[in-house]
Amino acid sequence: MYTMELRFIRGGVCAVDGVLAAGCREGKYGVGLIINRGSTAAAVFTSNRVRAEPVKLTERVIADGSISAIVANSGNANCFTGREGMDDARRMARKVAESLSMDESEVAVASTGVIGRRMPIDKIEFLIQSAAAQLENSEAASGALAEAIMTTDTFPKEVAVEFELETGEKARIGAVAKGSGMIAPNMATMLSFITTDVDASSSELTEALRVAVDESFNMLIVDGDESTNDMVIISSTRTSGRIDSNFREALVAVCRELARMMARDGEGVTKSFQVDVVNAGTHEDAKMAARAIAGSSLVKTAIFGADPNWGRIVAAAGYSGAEFDPEEISVTLESDSESVVIVDHGDILAFEGTEELETAERVMTSKEIRIIVDLAAGDESATAYGCDLTYDYVRINAEYTT
Amino acid sequence: MYTMELRFIRGGVCAVDGVLAAGCREGKYGVGLIINRGSTAAAVFTSNRVRAEPVKLTERVIADGSISAIVANSGNANCFTGREGMDDARRMARKVAESLSMDESEVAVASTGVIGRRMPIDKIEFLIQSAAAQLENSEAASGALAEAIMTTDTFPKEVAVEFELETGEKARIGAVAKGSGMIAPNMATMLSFITTDVDASSSELTEALRVAVDESFNMLIVDGDESTNDMVIISSTRTSGRIDSNFREALVAVCRELARMMARDGEGVTKSFQVDVVNAGTHEDAKMAARAIAGSSLVKTAIFGADPNWGRIVAAAGYSGAEFDPEEISVTLESDSESVVIVDHGDILAFEGTEELETAERVMTSKEIRIIVDLAAGDESATAYGCDLTYDYVRINAEYTT
Repeated sequence: MYTMELRFIRGGVCAVDGVLAAGCREGKYGVGLIINRGSTAAAVFTSNRVRAEPVKLTERVIADGSISAIVANSGNANCFTGREGMDDARRMARKVAESLSMDESEVAVASTGVIGRRMPIDKIEFLIQSAAAQLENSEAASGALAEAIMTTDTFPKEVAVEFELETGEKARIGAVAKGSGMIAPNMATMLSFITTDVDASSSELTEALRVAVDESFNMLIVDGDESTNDMVIISSTRTSGRIDSNFREALVAVCRELARMMARDGEGVTKSFQVDVVNAGTHEDAKMAARAIAGSSLVKTAIFGADPNWGRIVAAAGYSGAEFDPEEISVTLESDSESVVIVDHGDILAFEGTEELETAERVMTSKEIRIIVDLAAGDESATAYGCDLTYDYVRINAEYTT
Repeated sequence: MYTMELRFIRGGVCAVDGVLAAGCREGKYGVGLIINRGSTAAAVFTSNRVRAEPVKLTERVIADGSISAIVANSGNANCFTGREGMDDARRMARKVAESLSMDESEVAVASTGVIGRRMPIDKIEFLIQSAAAQLENSEAASGALAEAIMTTDTFPKEVAVEFELETGEKARIGAVAKGSGMIAPNMATMLSFITTDVDASSSELTEALRVAVDESFNMLIVDGDESTNDMVIISSTRTSGRIDSNFREALVAVCRELARMMARDGEGVTKSFQVDVVNAGTHEDAKMAARAIAGSSLVKTAIFGADPNWGRIVAAAGYSGAEFDPEEISVTLESDSESVVIVDHGDILAFEGTEELETAERVMTSKEIRIIVDLAAGDESATAYGCDLTYDYVRINAEYTT
């Protein structure tokens, strides 16, 4: 899949030398800290018209292309909280700045949790102080950070890679994230904080980050795509070589791995799947078809029910807007151990009594499923990530109250 | 809601003089017939790239703006069936033509049911013959037709109205439909056949029908919007006065009533709801916001769970793409007997301990709920129709096998 060697290593955001992290949790509230003084930074924010106060604040903080710290809390999204909410976000930044002797305009703020409720700011300030006292460049510190920002996540999410730049210099990217492929009661807010040592300007980082987010988090299909609090920040120590295509490729790989983790996660999720649309006429077509299939409630319930329902897959491709000839489409289902073509150039191969149907039914019982849809309309491809739609999904979201 | 007087009457498609109908059912297969010799006709077809054979055939039949009959079967969608499928669709048209002495090029064909399986054409031909022997202009005949085209529908759907044209002439519109607001295993195919006596050319009917479909069926939110078999046909005897804006308004009303019936229907549906977005900047914005809210899985599960979750409603409006200021948005919940403002110009009124929350919780327990979202950004409005997302939805769609 990747054209260069990518070594997955431990350490999360702390895999990059000089980056400090910490995380503290008390009950349903958590605070995570990342310190990367004077780092070059870039961010991508939610496109939702309703934006939480920390999103508005961080957008201003990062406008000059540099940050020294990120503070993120879980338990309260500080969204739809008006002027008081903005004051609370500022107080979080100020608390970090005071504890660590930096300017508050250098502190990015992120929040995730319930919306429409005032922040328990005293508790959050207390947690910030505790976290500030535990900062370290260590695997454990990044782990504590990843745990602190979880909400409905069932496991912490960290990725780190080491690779060579085209010049042969070693470089690293580390990351933590929270979010789930399930539509969680808190709107499935997605936060990700990425660190690197690659030398790049803020605008170079922005460009690389946008592409990576587009191919990963934006292809993770959750309800409505973007919550009020989504935020991805990358910051660099600039201690390694110059940005190049190896870095860009590694960044896509890191973000995709995080997206896959999110697709697997979420209460009520029993299976995750990946849709690879290949041979589309345009990249946009490939993305539309992959997203439509991964987002189809009918496909998602079929995954839950282990039903190799080619009809739902083809129909979803049909309404996606992508151009293709239904008589040329092919569909393959894959698990880790098996692969079976169920539709071949418009011919249905998996029907009652066939070996194809038997294999397809077996593939559909695995925990991670790959659906490959060949549109036979060009040579562009795209991948989307999704999870099944289950009884527990309905229960969790119906029982949760405001 | 309507600016002119609209009298809802009985009789379905047979409310229009001269129209004959019939319906026969045997087990899971049904056939419905409508005869309107030499009528002027127009149709709107699915925009899904994958189209069933009868859709392709009927598009050609109706190209000259005239039809004499419509034959529709339930139980098999005749989709993804290739050349044999087209032969079967033609055989259906031919059987009608032979039984009733007309040209087969005057017979429109529609199908709904499972996809990817060959039509049981002998059985369908037998049912066509039986139906042809029972044709009548009667309430019972339209009712039999409405029953014959049902698949997962739990009740037949008919509407008929009488109204005055601007000239004072009396005119009528009658209709039957099948389809459900739930995402049914058969892709929730939507069929509707409409009759009228208003004098209009095929292109005038096409224009009026497109507008009506856009404001009704296209605002009924089901998975992925359009199945492979969707079809709406209108045919006119042209025995009343000329087409005018009263007719256009009545046609919208008829289609909206059918869409509301579909939202209420479907196995697994316990409640239906309507989203009225008002004071949007553009009509497109109003439609996008209404559709996003009605289609949100989080809103749909909140309706099921009777949770007045303003956060999910506002967030869905936020990601819809519609322009608005979150600090100006207002949200009202309504049942038949009560109405309560839960968000007023960005202020949350329904929180713990308030009378607003109590009323809102009561409203959310009713079978039909209206959500009114005021974007305070202009004076355009739109309405979308949806139903709740329930345990039974997951069960039905997960257990159904290809």
